[in-house]
Amino acid sequence: MTDTREPTAQGVAHAARKVAEILPATPLLPLEIDGRTIWCKAESLQPVGAFKIRGAWHRLTALTPEERARGVVGVSSGNHAQGVAWAARRLGIAAAIVMPTDAPAVKLANTRALGAEVVLYDRPGGEDRDAVAQRLCAERGATLVHAYADPWIIEGQGSAGLEIAAQMEERAGGGPDLVVAPCGGGGLAAGLALACPEARIVPVEPEGWDDVTRSLALGRIERVAADAPPTACDALQTPATRPVNFRVLQARCPFGLVVTPAQVRAAQRLAFSALRLVVEPGGAAALAAVLAGKVELGARTAVVLSGGNTDADAFAQVIAGSD
Amino acid sequence: MTDTREPTAQGVAHAARKVAEILPATPLLPLEIDGRTIWCKAESLQPVGAFKIRGAWHRLTALTPEERARGVVGVSSGNHAQGVAWAARRLGIAAAIVMPTDAPAVKLANTRALGAEVVLYDRPGGEDRDAVAQRLCAERGATLVHAYADPWIIEGQGSAGLEIAAQMEERAGGGPDLVVAPCGGGGLAAGLALACPEARIVPVEPEGWDDVTRSLALGRIERVAADAPPTACDALQTPATRPVNFRVLQARCPFGLVVTPAQVRAAQRLAFSALRLVVEPGGAAALAAVLAGKVELGARTAVVLSGGNTDADAFAQVIAGSD
Repeated sequence: MTDTREPTAQGVAHAARKVAEILPATPLLPLEIDGRTIWCKAESLQPVGAFKIRGAWHRLTALTPEERARGVVGVSSGNHAQGVAWAARRLGIAAAIVMPTDAPAVKLANTRALGAEVVLYDRPGGEDRDAVAQRLCAERGATLVHAYADPWIIEGQGSAGLEIAAQMEERAGGGPDLVVAPCGGGGLAAGLALACPEARIVPVEPEGWDDVTRSLALGRIERVAADAPPTACDALQTPATRPVNFRVLQARCPFGLVVTPAQVRAAQRLAFSALRLVVEPGGAAALAAVLAGKVELGARTAVVLSGGNTDADAFAQVIAGSD
Repeated sequence: MTDTREPTAQGVAHAARKVAEILPATPLLPLEIDGRTIWCKAESLQPVGAFKIRGAWHRLTALTPEERARGVVGVSSGNHAQGVAWAARRLGIAAAIVMPTDAPAVKLANTRALGAEVVLYDRPGGEDRDAVAQRLCAERGATLVHAYADPWIIEGQGSAGLEIAAQMEERAGGGPDLVVAPCGGGGLAAGLALACPEARIVPVEPEGWDDVTRSLALGRIERVAADAPPTACDALQTPATRPVNFRVLQARCPFGLVVTPAQVRAAQRLAFSALRLVVEPGGAAALAAVLAGKVELGARTAVVLSGGNTDADAFAQVIAGSD
């Protein structure tokens, strides 16, 4: 098990130092909405196009030489996959990634291009990806690198929050008092909560995949419905958060927010035209919530644009559309 | 006249200090092409979506209080327009921008949104934009802020080169030995030449608008043909460079390069998929030349992605295409 210790603010600080050694801070771009400035953290500009590189680096560098020699197994629709593959290649570790057959083509191609072995599972058909991953780990003695239910992963993702805080101190006169972030399993949101103890943290999920929002409201972990609708936000398609995430989220997030597909597309279009950024649907969820006026802005609001891996045809359709 | 003094390396250093006070360095993103890493300077991420904000800031902050009170006039298809408008708004200076009727809609809209007065001229019909601008200046006593034939503008654009040098020193073990940049009138290329005295500087122009390339080959300033073909690279559509630019370019650039529309589109697609950046056609010209193998790479090659202001429909068509 990878969730046997609690993630800590000290761990986030440690992760941030390690990340800063190899990755420059991603830009924090100001964006005016209705006359107010919000600050957009462009994690889509990481080398793998998503913040996932942070947690993967913190996790893989914490492995022992023996663990490194036996390799790692990841489970991901694509962004965590690329993060693990990138970190593994840099450290000379063999990586296998369990990915759904219906992952965006660009994510499958990029993961393979980074040298990882891709093991497909049948998500639409209901195959259990965790079972596939655990079988691989058992066969190979490899270490499972969970996409979110892991204290190192949470701490690593939190390093984005320390960058935001430093950048806003310099440019906005103080750290963030509100951080809005896309939420799948809750790894990023939990990390940001540890990194920014004085900010409100608001996780945002796509319609039908609102397990964290419902879990926060009910005070216990809820799963998405078995017949959850398809969503363009493949990066946020997780069936349920886990205790190691939920303990942090419950302590720090009074509520989550849900955005519709049209709101996500509007946010992608704004990121395109006003920031000149390619943001994937899941990566635009937090901006979608802000743009739709679903959360009262803070004096210093940060919004995470968490990823930019999207197929060209899908992106072309979004930006050429107007709904 | 604004080209009565020569731009200098000291002026570039001064501009860089002024720019750094208000704008964080744009990211320098590594990109692998055929197993080699080049470094892409993402000027498309400036607040106005282009490097033009640099020269405009250096120029407008150098005006006297009396000059500021009488306002400025710019001439631009859109990126210089937005740079001047942005700087003018921040300094409380009235700005009028002479723009072509066929400028991209997004550039017209953004310039107006920044509070500038837009004065349209008939580019397709052959109206002389400089004459329109000079008439405005005469009527208002305003200062002409030329898009490239101005030592302050050249020095300001050069600040991008000092950022590149500092970023590559830290991450690539030394400053650039090759800098490839899109070229319209030659303001950016001349500024980079002053900023990076030890690098080869290669300006890149779109087919039919290759006046600088021909001027370098012939040793004298040449104009584009009166019947130059239409180009998607509106930002690089300048009829001729000027002596203040050409003196610098001639001393430092052995040659220029020309790229085709298809090569530009391929570069836009690569920037989309591998860097998750929205780059406009003119902004992708330098990357297009590198991608097409038109220049021998250096040990440390920098490529400027100079702008990202492009209409959604046009961009959608490019990334969804494959030619």
